[in-house]
Amino acid sequence: MEQHSNTAMALTSDMPNKKQTVCIFGTGDFGRSLGHKMMQCGYTIVYGTRNPKDTKLIPQGASGMSHREAAETSDIIILAIHRIYYDFLDKLKETLCGKVLVDVSNNLKINQYPETNAEYLAQLLPESKVVKAFNTVSAWALQSGALDASRQVFVCGNDGRSKEKVMDIVRSLGLTPLDKGSLLAAKEIEDYPLQLFPMWKYPIYLSLGLTVFLFIYCIIRDVVYNHVTKSKDFSFFLVISIPNRVCPIVALVLLALVYLPGIFAAVLQLYRGTKYKRFPNWLDKWMLCRKQLGLIALAFAFLHVLYTLVIPIRYYVRWKSNSYITKQVLDNKTDSFVTEYAWLSDSYVALGILGFFLFVLLGITSLPSVANSVNWREFRFVQSYLGYLTLVLCTAHTLIYGGKRFLNIGSYPWGLPAAYILSLIIPCIVLVMKFFLIFPCIDRPLTAIRQGWERKPKHLCEPHNLSGSSV
Amino acid sequence: MEQHSNTAMALTSDMPNKKQTVCIFGTGDFGRSLGHKMMQCGYTIVYGTRNPKDTKLIPQGASGMSHREAAETSDIIILAIHRIYYDFLDKLKETLCGKVLVDVSNNLKINQYPETNAEYLAQLLPESKVVKAFNTVSAWALQSGALDASRQVFVCGNDGRSKEKVMDIVRSLGLTPLDKGSLLAAKEIEDYPLQLFPMWKYPIYLSLGLTVFLFIYCIIRDVVYNHVTKSKDFSFFLVISIPNRVCPIVALVLLALVYLPGIFAAVLQLYRGTKYKRFPNWLDKWMLCRKQLGLIALAFAFLHVLYTLVIPIRYYVRWKSNSYITKQVLDNKTDSFVTEYAWLSDSYVALGILGFFLFVLLGITSLPSVANSVNWREFRFVQSYLGYLTLVLCTAHTLIYGGKRFLNIGSYPWGLPAAYILSLIIPCIVLVMKFFLIFPCIDRPLTAIRQGWERKPKHLCEPHNLSGSSV
Amino acid sequence: MEQHSNTAMALTSDMPNKKQTVCIFGTGDFGRSLGHKMMQCGYTIVYGTRNPKDTKLIPQGASGMSHREAAETSDIIILAIHRIYYDFLDKLKETLCGKVLVDVSNNLKINQYPETNAEYLAQLLPESKVVKAFNTVSAWALQSGALDASRQVFVCGNDGRSKEKVMDIVRSLGLTPLDKGSLLAAKEIEDYPLQLFPMWKYPIYLSLGLTVFLFIYCIIRDVVYNHVTKSKDFSFFLVISIPNRVCPIVALVLLALVYLPGIFAAVLQLYRGTKYKRFPNWLDKWMLCRKQLGLIALAFAFLHVLYTLVIPIRYYVRWKSNSYITKQVLDNKTDSFVTEYAWLSDSYVALGILGFFLFVLLGITSLPSVANSVNWREFRFVQSYLGYLTLVLCTAHTLIYGGKRFLNIGSYPWGLPAAYILSLIIPCIVLVMKFFLIFPCIDRPLTAIRQGWERKPKHLCEPHNLSGSSV
Repeated sequence: MEQHSNTAMALTSDMPNKKQTVCIFGTGDFGRSLGHKMMQCGYTIVYGTRNPKDTKLIPQGASGMSHREAAETSDIIILAIHRIYYDFLDKLKETLCGKVLVDVSNNLKINQYPETNAEYLAQLLPESKVVKAFNTVSAWALQSGALDASRQVFVCGNDGRSKEKVMDIVRSLGLTPLDKGSLLAAKEIEDYPLQLFPMWKYPIYLSLGLTVFLFIYCIIRDVVYNHVTKSKDFSFFLVISIPNRVCPIVALVLLALVYLPGIFAAVLQLYRGTKYKRFPNWLDKWMLCRKQLGLIALAFAFLHVLYTLVIPIRYYVRWKSNSYITKQVLDNKTDSFVTEYAWLSDSYVALGILGFFLFVLLGITSLPSVANSVNWREFRFVQSYLGYLTLVLCTAHTLIYGGKRFLNIGSYPWGLPAAYILSLIIPCIVLVMKFFLIFPCIDRPLTAIRQGWERKPKHLCEPHNLSGSSV
Repeated sequence: MEQHSNTAMALTSDMPNKKQTVCIFGTGDFGRSLGHKMMQCGYTIVYGTRNPKDTKLIPQGASGMSHREAAETSDIIILAIHRIYYDFLDKLKETLCGKVLVDVSNNLKINQYPETNAEYLAQLLPESKVVKAFNTVSAWALQSGALDASRQVFVCGNDGRSKEKVMDIVRSLGLTPLDKGSLLAAKEIEDYPLQLFPMWKYPIYLSLGLTVFLFIYCIIRDVVYNHVTKSKDFSFFLVISIPNRVCPIVALVLLALVYLPGIFAAVLQLYRGTKYKRFPNWLDKWMLCRKQLGLIALAFAFLHVLYTLVIPIRYYVRWKSNSYITKQVLDNKTDSFVTEYAWLSDSYVALGILGFFLFVLLGITSLPSVANSVNWREFRFVQSYLGYLTLVLCTAHTLIYGGKRFLNIGSYPWGLPAAYILSLIIPCIVLVMKFFLIFPCIDRPLTAIRQGWERKPKHLCEPHNLSGSSV
Repeated sequence: MEQHSNTAMALTSDMPNKKQTVCIFGTGDFGRSLGHKMMQCGYTIVYGTRNPKDTKLIPQGASGMSHREAAETSDIIILAIHRIYYDFLDKLKETLCGKVLVDVSNNLKINQYPETNAEYLAQLLPESKVVKAFNTVSAWALQSGALDASRQVFVCGNDGRSKEKVMDIVRSLGLTPLDKGSLLAAKEIEDYPLQLFPMWKYPIYLSLGLTVFLFIYCIIRDVVYNHVTKSKDFSFFLVISIPNRVCPIVALVLLALVYLPGIFAAVLQLYRGTKYKRFPNWLDKWMLCRKQLGLIALAFAFLHVLYTLVIPIRYYVRWKSNSYITKQVLDNKTDSFVTEYAWLSDSYVALGILGFFLFVLLGITSLPSVANSVNWREFRFVQSYLGYLTLVLCTAHTLIYGGKRFLNIGSYPWGLPAAYILSLIIPCIVLVMKFFLIFPCIDRPLTAIRQGWERKPKHLCEPHNLSGSSV
């Protein structure tokens, strides 16, 4: 045996124990990439094409035949063609009868057609066994080794044995098949690759709304007020000063909103005396997007940190500091050192640093691969205990920042309180309610309820069910 | 076929080739979630419940029967009930005889009972085949698509074929089964979800101990000393100044402790002349928690960076700077520029920046998903070469920070050296010993030993074993 | 049944339904670790060794025999020995005839031998069925639970059924087998663990080259020029000032180079009127290392941020600021506040912050585990739209930093433009070309081409292929 520098040769050589032959209709990007990958894993690939003599588009090692001939060589036909061309399959009805047709197609938008592509295919060829698969895998991912793309391949179909065959192919490509049930699940599977961050929609809208409102509020309070009453031009506040006021507020409010639904759920469970009633729909949805809310809050906190750290570099700040010193010197005055100010300034900054540090820790543990490597108890410990600690630190940071200022009547231009005061409302509500919930006299019945106990048990029959996890 | 907007319908429809029927005892959170997920993957689920008429708790698409009837429909019975209710199974002994019982239960704490739940069940029903599985999966993870939770499902049991059946179910749910052996492994499997960061325990205790010691040391040296001898109130140093002295020291010491056990191991191997003797237990344990030590060191370094960057914002620093300038002006003095100071100040800062940068890089490559995508040689390159480079940079950063100050007798209040001097001891030992270990005359025999060579070979018979990796 | 504190006992006990017996030749690190792991998963392990009485090296629960006896107990023999000792297998030729030999060996460097180890083994024992596997798994990973190391095991071999048997073992260990085809693929598999970041090579060389060039350029322009013409010693600029000029430039240029090949590809496709022609090789390679280019750019941007944030802490900067104030006071002058400067300074900084923020976001989404959890459309949205937004923000950041300075003739010492001007060339080209490409009159035909349309169709036969993804 000779030395081989090219692994592509491995595919074209005669292998003694070949896996089965699979037919692919369509020599587009996807058909070619899938065929190439399957050949690497030992399959024999036959392409069905209208012009079998044009071999340019057929990957090395595969053969090209007419659609009918190709379909006859294999029990499994992968359709890598667009839905709009499905009708030509009508002519092959007899050849395809009883065979497994794998629909890998995607549409350009959700609800483009009344029925899913896979169901349309099943209607067209009722004698064939249609399986939906591979539509979430991209040609690019197949070419580049599938390392960066998701390994999960959703599969559905009405015929169990056909599904098994397709899932075996998926497994042999090093991907993980996930059986989603009958062909009715094709709707969900075809919608999946067309989604754009569905879980992030509401959290992003909410944070954008909050940001815009606070921006306008701060512009009125800081820029317009100064312009109108004092004729000063602070328009440049728009660029850094106001964003650095808005970001921490949005971060704090969103962080509090991560923990508010848990409080609601606890109160509801206590009030109802059971956990076996469904939460209202809005609460369910809210609880499902807590992770997204938390990560957006972290993004705003990160911006706040950057905006804060550049303060000494800003022209405005340097000019103000220089003017102040010059004035002091010319007036022959010296400020005496006030230890209280040092305490306040340092505490405020230190609380912010520690809060941000824990926030980053929470963010890291919510990375999929980190979350996967901890058990449920550890995940809860980090996300619940450290999460509340973060909220406490950040709220304290904001409280000390304000200090006694909120008592000063001069700090309410046009009667508007500073934005940071508004930001404290929700976090303080959450913390006060949580404080009551950890009182033993409230915590004890709540824990019992979450372990399945019921105040007025209606389900007398099932007192001993296993609850995997509480809220 | 009509358009279906609801995928839940996919589960209730008649599917031609259904997978097998599985019975679940218990309609708690976990039982319901698992049943729902299994139905999505094509299984027919029958719930065993004491009150089959109460259908509220039974997921749509599943049927509820009495325990006995339900058990008769399937060969596999999943017990989603608490251990304390297992004794009622005694009545079903005959029905359950020969069937696979899947124990999914968890306890509330480690060593709650003398024997594991699975073994207790096996004693109770010796005629049934008990398999432990699914206890590390949470109801929440099953409901929310299992994307965030671990995909790994530990399985153990005495009967191989039963285990295979359960592992097939695990696979079809898109999870990865991991066979842990006979039912004796149930102990390990039941303990797993009750653990709270077992690998992190010693590193966290160590770093907390170090932090507390250094905190008290710095308080005595900086706050108490100044208060006693100079009657100055520097109590506010507690908030930022002292943490910013403690954090870098803890970070540097922990980073050095990551590399110290490797040095010990090398010395031990050189001394013994073989790698086929086990290391002492403490060294083994130490080497296994190097990653945790490194990550905690990174956390302290991160805090040090934040504490350092806020320096110009602090009231104390601004006041000191302003006072200094004012004093200079009033005294009509100007400082001349000293290039040496500029070199020292900039080098010190630049080394810190580069060290932190490499440290962050090390942290990123230790993320599970990143570590998984590099091969062994690449991982070693990053964690070993870049790791030592980080240690060198951080040690140099600390050395230049100190500069010539340690020679100045005035900098030893009450004879106490500055804390940073203490921090240099371990890193310098590690670097000096590593320096000797990379000398060719020492490196050559060490490499030979790590590849299996022995100075006084006792295992003459096996000179050619394959060693997958050295320390 | 008694309580068992030690899970090791689970392995030695009698298990009723054992999996098959597997033989391992070699009791080195790798052989022992693999055997231990396999026993945990229920296999019976028999070690083949030259000195079966020396049981020190044989893991508890396994048995040791002579090579011949051991080989006779099993159909599968795992060879955990170095290639140089393979010739002793010649004596066992008859015993090994027809059996599956698993070659797990690695070499010390690429192309160490003319043929791969697996092919050499197959030549040596033509009657045995050689399968290459496990060579990418380290002994360390097997010992420590395989959680941190890659779960992917490459498998190749000429005999399909033998390969299946080995892949079943891989699966039962909780790892993912990946069939790479016939034994000719052994070359690729044996080279894999010897690679050192092959995809990173060109991006790292490029960025190092750029860095060195810019460093020298800045030294000449800032240090040497000042030394020669003004006799000023700015040598300490080497440590922070110049790195902080070089880092942002390298970051911006590399970021632009991430998007340049996509522009080239689009122009090429428009010019050719088809996407079914291969890109030139250099463009293909360039496109495959875009992720690496982007991550190195992010590293340089991160350094730039750190270097910038420490500015107010530097001795040089503090001295300059103090001197300036002192001078102002002594000259009895006060600077008046210029709103335009405030706008410019703040905009410049704010654009940098936002650009860096998006850059970090791009970096996080390129983490394998994050990239795996988004679908193709979401990945494209982040990497393409947010990526271009990042480039726009960073280019604007640099433009505003320069301001009107480039018009000033005094800012060209020795006729050399400031380095930041050079850095703008490539980003501006990319942005201008992209601007034209999104014009509807150009975008429409391009989109059509990427969906398979051809201006001069040669492949009339295949108008309806499915393209999984465009560039």
